[in-house]
Amino acid sequence: MGHRRQPEPKPTLAGSDRYVYSFRQGDGKNKALLGGKGANLCEMTQIGLNVPPGFVITTEACLHYLADQDKGLPRGLMPAVKEHIRDLERLTGKGFGAKDNPLLVSVRSGGAMSMPGMMDTVLNLGLNKNTLSGLAEQTGNHRFALDSYRRFIQLFGKVALGVPDEYFDAHLENVKKRAGAQADLDLGASDLEEVCNLFLGVVTEHTGQPFPDDPYEQLEVAIKAVFGSWMGKRAVDYRREFNITEDMANGTAVNVVAMVYGNMGDDSGTGVAFTRNPGTGENELFGEYLVNAQGEDVVAGIRTPKPVQNMAQEMPELYQQLEALRSKLEGHYSEVQDFEFTIEKGILYCLQTRNGKMNAAAKVRTSVEMEREGLISREQALLRVEPQLLEQMLYPQVDPSHKAEPAAQGIAASPGAACGKIVFDADRAEAAGRLGEKVILVREETKPEDIHGFFAAQGILTSRGGKTSHAAVVARGMGKPCVAGAEGINVDGRASRAYVGSHVLGEGDILTIDGTTGRVYLGELPTVEPDFSNELETLLNWADDTAALKVMANADTPEDAERAVRYGAMGIGLCRTERMFNAAERLPIVVEMILADTPEERQSALDRLLPIQRADFKALFSVMSPRPVTVRLLDPPMHEFLPTEQELMDEISRLRDKSAVDEKLITEKEIILKKVRGLHEINPMLGHRGVRLAITYPEIYRMQIQAILEAAAECVEEGTDVHPEVMVPQVCTVRELEFVSKLVREVHQETERAHNVKVPFHFGTMVEVVRACLRAESLSNIAEFFSFGTNDLSQATFSFSREDAENKFLPLYNKIGVLMDNPFEVLDVQGMGRLMRMTVEWGRKTRPDLVVGICGEHGGHPDSIRFCHHIGLDYVSCSAPRVPVARLAAARAALLQDDYKLEP
Amino acid sequence: MGHRRQPEPKPTLAGSDRYVYSFRQGDGKNKALLGGKGANLCEMTQIGLNVPPGFVITTEACLHYLADQDKGLPRGLMPAVKEHIRDLERLTGKGFGAKDNPLLVSVRSGGAMSMPGMMDTVLNLGLNKNTLSGLAEQTGNHRFALDSYRRFIQLFGKVALGVPDEYFDAHLENVKKRAGAQADLDLGASDLEEVCNLFLGVVTEHTGQPFPDDPYEQLEVAIKAVFGSWMGKRAVDYRREFNITEDMANGTAVNVVAMVYGNMGDDSGTGVAFTRNPGTGENELFGEYLVNAQGEDVVAGIRTPKPVQNMAQEMPELYQQLEALRSKLEGHYSEVQDFEFTIEKGILYCLQTRNGKMNAAAKVRTSVEMEREGLISREQALLRVEPQLLEQMLYPQVDPSHKAEPAAQGIAASPGAACGKIVFDADRAEAAGRLGEKVILVREETKPEDIHGFFAAQGILTSRGGKTSHAAVVARGMGKPCVAGAEGINVDGRASRAYVGSHVLGEGDILTIDGTTGRVYLGELPTVEPDFSNELETLLNWADDTAALKVMANADTPEDAERAVRYGAMGIGLCRTERMFNAAERLPIVVEMILADTPEERQSALDRLLPIQRADFKALFSVMSPRPVTVRLLDPPMHEFLPTEQELMDEISRLRDKSAVDEKLITEKEIILKKVRGLHEINPMLGHRGVRLAITYPEIYRMQIQAILEAAAECVEEGTDVHPEVMVPQVCTVRELEFVSKLVREVHQETERAHNVKVPFHFGTMVEVVRACLRAESLSNIAEFFSFGTNDLSQATFSFSREDAENKFLPLYNKIGVLMDNPFEVLDVQGMGRLMRMTVEWGRKTRPDLVVGICGEHGGHPDSIRFCHHIGLDYVSCSAPRVPVARLAAARAALLQDDYKLEP
Repeated sequence: MGHRRQPEPKPTLAGSDRYVYSFRQGDGKNKALLGGKGANLCEMTQIGLNVPPGFVITTEACLHYLADQDKGLPRGLMPAVKEHIRDLERLTGKGFGAKDNPLLVSVRSGGAMSMPGMMDTVLNLGLNKNTLSGLAEQTGNHRFALDSYRRFIQLFGKVALGVPDEYFDAHLENVKKRAGAQADLDLGASDLEEVCNLFLGVVTEHTGQPFPDDPYEQLEVAIKAVFGSWMGKRAVDYRREFNITEDMANGTAVNVVAMVYGNMGDDSGTGVAFTRNPGTGENELFGEYLVNAQGEDVVAGIRTPKPVQNMAQEMPELYQQLEALRSKLEGHYSEVQDFEFTIEKGILYCLQTRNGKMNAAAKVRTSVEMEREGLISREQALLRVEPQLLEQMLYPQVDPSHKAEPAAQGIAASPGAACGKIVFDADRAEAAGRLGEKVILVREETKPEDIHGFFAAQGILTSRGGKTSHAAVVARGMGKPCVAGAEGINVDGRASRAYVGSHVLGEGDILTIDGTTGRVYLGELPTVEPDFSNELETLLNWADDTAALKVMANADTPEDAERAVRYGAMGIGLCRTERMFNAAERLPIVVEMILADTPEERQSALDRLLPIQRADFKALFSVMSPRPVTVRLLDPPMHEFLPTEQELMDEISRLRDKSAVDEKLITEKEIILKKVRGLHEINPMLGHRGVRLAITYPEIYRMQIQAILEAAAECVEEGTDVHPEVMVPQVCTVRELEFVSKLVREVHQETERAHNVKVPFHFGTMVEVVRACLRAESLSNIAEFFSFGTNDLSQATFSFSREDAENKFLPLYNKIGVLMDNPFEVLDVQGMGRLMRMTVEWGRKTRPDLVVGICGEHGGHPDSIRFCHHIGLDYVSCSAPRVPVARLAAARAALLQDDYKLEP
Repeated sequence: MGHRRQPEPKPTLAGSDRYVYSFRQGDGKNKALLGGKGANLCEMTQIGLNVPPGFVITTEACLHYLADQDKGLPRGLMPAVKEHIRDLERLTGKGFGAKDNPLLVSVRSGGAMSMPGMMDTVLNLGLNKNTLSGLAEQTGNHRFALDSYRRFIQLFGKVALGVPDEYFDAHLENVKKRAGAQADLDLGASDLEEVCNLFLGVVTEHTGQPFPDDPYEQLEVAIKAVFGSWMGKRAVDYRREFNITEDMANGTAVNVVAMVYGNMGDDSGTGVAFTRNPGTGENELFGEYLVNAQGEDVVAGIRTPKPVQNMAQEMPELYQQLEALRSKLEGHYSEVQDFEFTIEKGILYCLQTRNGKMNAAAKVRTSVEMEREGLISREQALLRVEPQLLEQMLYPQVDPSHKAEPAAQGIAASPGAACGKIVFDADRAEAAGRLGEKVILVREETKPEDIHGFFAAQGILTSRGGKTSHAAVVARGMGKPCVAGAEGINVDGRASRAYVGSHVLGEGDILTIDGTTGRVYLGELPTVEPDFSNELETLLNWADDTAALKVMANADTPEDAERAVRYGAMGIGLCRTERMFNAAERLPIVVEMILADTPEERQSALDRLLPIQRADFKALFSVMSPRPVTVRLLDPPMHEFLPTEQELMDEISRLRDKSAVDEKLITEKEIILKKVRGLHEINPMLGHRGVRLAITYPEIYRMQIQAILEAAAECVEEGTDVHPEVMVPQVCTVRELEFVSKLVREVHQETERAHNVKVPFHFGTMVEVVRACLRAESLSNIAEFFSFGTNDLSQATFSFSREDAENKFLPLYNKIGVLMDNPFEVLDVQGMGRLMRMTVEWGRKTRPDLVVGICGEHGGHPDSIRFCHHIGLDYVSCSAPRVPVARLAAARAALLQDDYKLEP
């Protein structure tokens, strides 16, 4: 909690005080102190953009305030604010609270990290009965002044005084109904005056106090409210969800900016834009604007705005200014910018800019194009794209060959296809998500309060709002498919009903949305995987050139392997042979092998498995040629191939209950039951499996080794370049590895003799038992490579059985922070990582060219990959869809290696 | 296998050759080369004992011979032997093969390690028709010459030519029957001549060759036979059983010694003796002798010999010589000696000496007394006793208050009581032992071939032979109870029957033997634990003064604790609180706690457990005061307190089948069944237990902490000096430990406030999860002590579930040497030990005075204790009966610390 620095006892005047900086003075790099938005406004001002004048109140002031709210704002803050208001008065020639030419300001929150929509903002502050007429006079637009006033009363009432929106909305709707107005714009000045009076009444009624008229009182209350919003539920939830810690952002700054007006007539307007298309990455101005409106109208999705391109016709000169602004922003920030602008009577103001949130495809495309345009270096291009983001690009898309007619068409707000049961409410989405159900959150429009529903949903569908609506922005940030503004759907959230043409949809009905096309389908549609874009290929090739780590895939079948190659895998790091045993036509032979009473009976079953496995390997080697294929010998305990005791008992009792009892079949089942009981283990994770099976039943491993080496020999005979690697699981002693090594050498000699070709191979071991780590020097005498099996190694290091832990206590551990992550998803660098690092060091002591990799689930996790790079591994191996993620992560790890710090 | 040294190409003459050393030349320290016996004979000769002249053929010669037996004895060996025989001829004035005054020799095996009875010996070598008459003439005793000759033919026939004993024995018995002789001594010269001729016939018939007459041929054949016996089954079995590796002994030497004769009349005799009583340790000459007999008669137990004390009357002058010999031997060897002597016509020869095998009590007593006599230092006294041996002294004895009448009385040959089913055969003993049955091996007399039966049996009973019979010597060496020479029992091994008075005993009948008193009882008798002897107290007090490691006990109850204190425990290192939950009257409350649906229901059960646990702790603290008591908070998973799923299903179906169905009871059982299913874990060893329970149900740990600290407070109030230590199991993250630490601090404050006394305590953690080792620096920020839980840590390090491993693959692993030991019995120094060593180092980095101990099963194992000392632990904790073992082991570790070597 501690403050970064003790406050000075007595703040001095503007320019040298600690709490307040004008945009002309603030350090544009100091986001911790000024917040992201404030720092940006300072920077924008100082690089010569047309930003309305204003000042920033620091995050430090916020923290001091929050530390003891009863004391009010920190001493000296308000005098400094007044000093700066006087500065604004000088710059604008307006007067704060002045009847003539009044100065109005916006008060906006902004912490060090961007938290869109999470905290509060007040516009038009400074309005009261007095300044209202001044504003009307000053602008010659009475209606505008009243419109601003009623907006201000509602916003201030809600944000600063805690009056719920509904109280205001009800009155507004009544007045509109009485006036026969469709939209807010249809209301006349007298209507708005009535609204203002009603709104003032709402505030008095709700707070027991009249609405504050004094602009400085308004300002003080607003500053406190913004400060307070930092600890509001929404903001706290958001920070927790995105792991924003106090180190990263602590407290919000407050930006006080002279108001400019987009609602001063048809030569005014407001908009938000991206310097490039955040959905596709295309190098074009992208955004939306509304004529004669304030910015809130766009963001909240209340009115559906026009594409910014329309400005080229409607306001060609301003459009040129906008294009110039775009170039200036990208040139300065070397990053796609998401900016807000307002046009006040033909003058373009830039109100805010920040790095644009983009989906993966856009991020990739802009990275590659900006590199080509000379805006960024290749390294910057690689570092710009969070590896995790690439997963989005591999999200399934609706199968283009499907015949289904869309039920509705909306705006393609965030790409990818999603399918799930309809829920109409974020809370219910969250509840269903906890149960593992796939849901689509369907709303008229979404609000910041709905954020928890986004996390839980597969996708989001709204009937209102555009590409920059709350739903669209948040969904893109999360990489979740979103269709926005699907106006053909009528959503009645209170009744939990949605109407599409003649269909009435209720909660639980299945829907498929395609965020890439904006289409909405009833029922579940087939999906397909996307192709790689050229830009992604380019970026990943750069990544491969940069990375030190190789990226392999975990793949068990030729189909898996083909996909892995498509995704750029440089080989197979883990082929689990037992998966080959599980196929329907093979399992009976495997069962026969397990039930065998004598080595001869077992051999007979193995003799039938041999040609099958050999064919498997041959296919795999052919697909992967000339890349290496690492085959792990049988790992799971025997009983995993048999039915459970309960299943067998149930089946036997079913068989007994039949009218015609088949005694022979029952006897067969009883034999299996006896075997299952004999094989029962108390802790199968730590049981009779892996190399321990090889010691007790060497003939099984011999068969597998034979299948691998014979397949390789056949490939060699056919001229295929193969590199099989034989890997032994669960090793914990050197003698175990020697035992299998001897088997391999024997079979290898036999195979080379029989085929009369040289069969290349490498021999290595999984390192997934703690003792293997501790005996690394000795194991590497025999093993040419180590492959960390971080799934099992995590279990052994924590003494956590994964299934049991995830069912019983891990969620609570994560919730109360006993563990920050699930160690089965995120490699535990501080504990297991330490053991891994020592293992690598010890193993290479004996064999300096020992190849070391990782083939657990962590192999596809960017943070874990960074650690793997840090400790000098040679490769990571992960599931095919994570291969692109891993390739990029490997490159980033190489680029960022110097600043890797391990906790002590 | 490799030879220690390449042989010289051409051995030279006696005195400088490589294969043969005379007793005057051989290096008495070089047991590897000369064997234990040979080196000893050289040493004995060189310190002036009256040893018959002889020479040693080296173990190297043996290995060269065994490497390629087809080539015969190594080149140059026989010429050197002949040279040395000529030396013997010079020394004795006799001639090898000479008709007049012939030289006869014994040929004995002897490797670097003593393997009593395991290899072969030939006596009277050199006899043939020719020398026979020379011997008769030379000694004036025709009968003796013939007796020697018939013994030689049989021994040589058996050992060197492979003719089974039975062929000879049958003839001997026939002749005795015909001659009306009871014993061999009753046979006259003509009978013996007949026996010799019959024996020569047996050899010719059996080998197809006449018995070799040439003494040098006899010698060569005998040397080969002795060499060959090194690889004989008995010897190989023995070495495997006692883990004698090639480093320790490789090959046997051959000792060729001029014969002296104990069977030359009533002024001759032979005997074996210990310099002190090997059964009690008493400082008295102890042994047996036979007048007019050769040594084999004593060792084989064929005739029952007289106690050596009888010599004081029978041969007073010789007895004085024997006493002088005893002093000389102990003075030189600083160790109790087990020696063989022969008196040839009034001259005492010492044939052999070696360190005496003693039982634990004797070893302890002689150590303390020899220290007091100034023969050895205190350090030597401590090092003389293998800690493991002390366990013997804690073997149960027959309850002295029992009323049973012994069925027979034999010689108390090896102390301790044993009870089991009768078996008459070593093979059957072994088979029954494999099944876990307790058996007593009952034989007329035992032979070296029976060794495997000794290993399997609880105790040994023979009807013939004395304290130095094979059975007695071997049983004492193994620390197994033995009653020998129980002549009142008539054993018919072939019929598997034994007759005691009117009783006929068959295989499977139960017998109790008391090796301390020599009594034999029918049926099973109650046994009691022995008291410590004064000497043991003394030795262990010396041990405590010497040791760096403290020895604590694992104890859960006041009774356990009392015993631990009696055994010298310096505190309790592990009190398992869950054992307190399992008592019949408590379990229902525990079950109620587990079934609780709400924290309130759970608290209500805990409120009832609190006073019970508090009383437990108070009793424990009182018994142990002022020693520390380390209490481990609840460790096992909840389901361990509930019946199994199967038990419940069976019970429910039983309840349903009753005539009066108790629906309420069934519902209760069904609720438990549901809970049991809910708590089911796939790998309970890695599941929801230990501190993980504390995180999910803090109220349970809170209750236990409260019970501990309140008990301590009550003790303090009563003036009892208490030192509770609170220990947390299964910790793997710092936050877990912080969580419990906070609970402890809270409860501690509450308790001190409520009782208004200072309550001392320490807080620490088990280190039994690998990750805890890896985070040692951080854990020791909070923990004042670490206690390695090596049982769980071994499981996690090996990824072996103990029960599964011991049932499924560990026996095979040990058998084929994949692992040398069971890692759950012997601490795995090379793997887990490395982790432990790092943990200690890391933990003390943060907290230099961190107390580190071990409370797994390994805490009582001497080798493991030595390692614990080596890595700087502060204490070991083990079960009470192992405390004395651990105390002595701790002292040895301190004494031997400089030569501890870890494998790389």
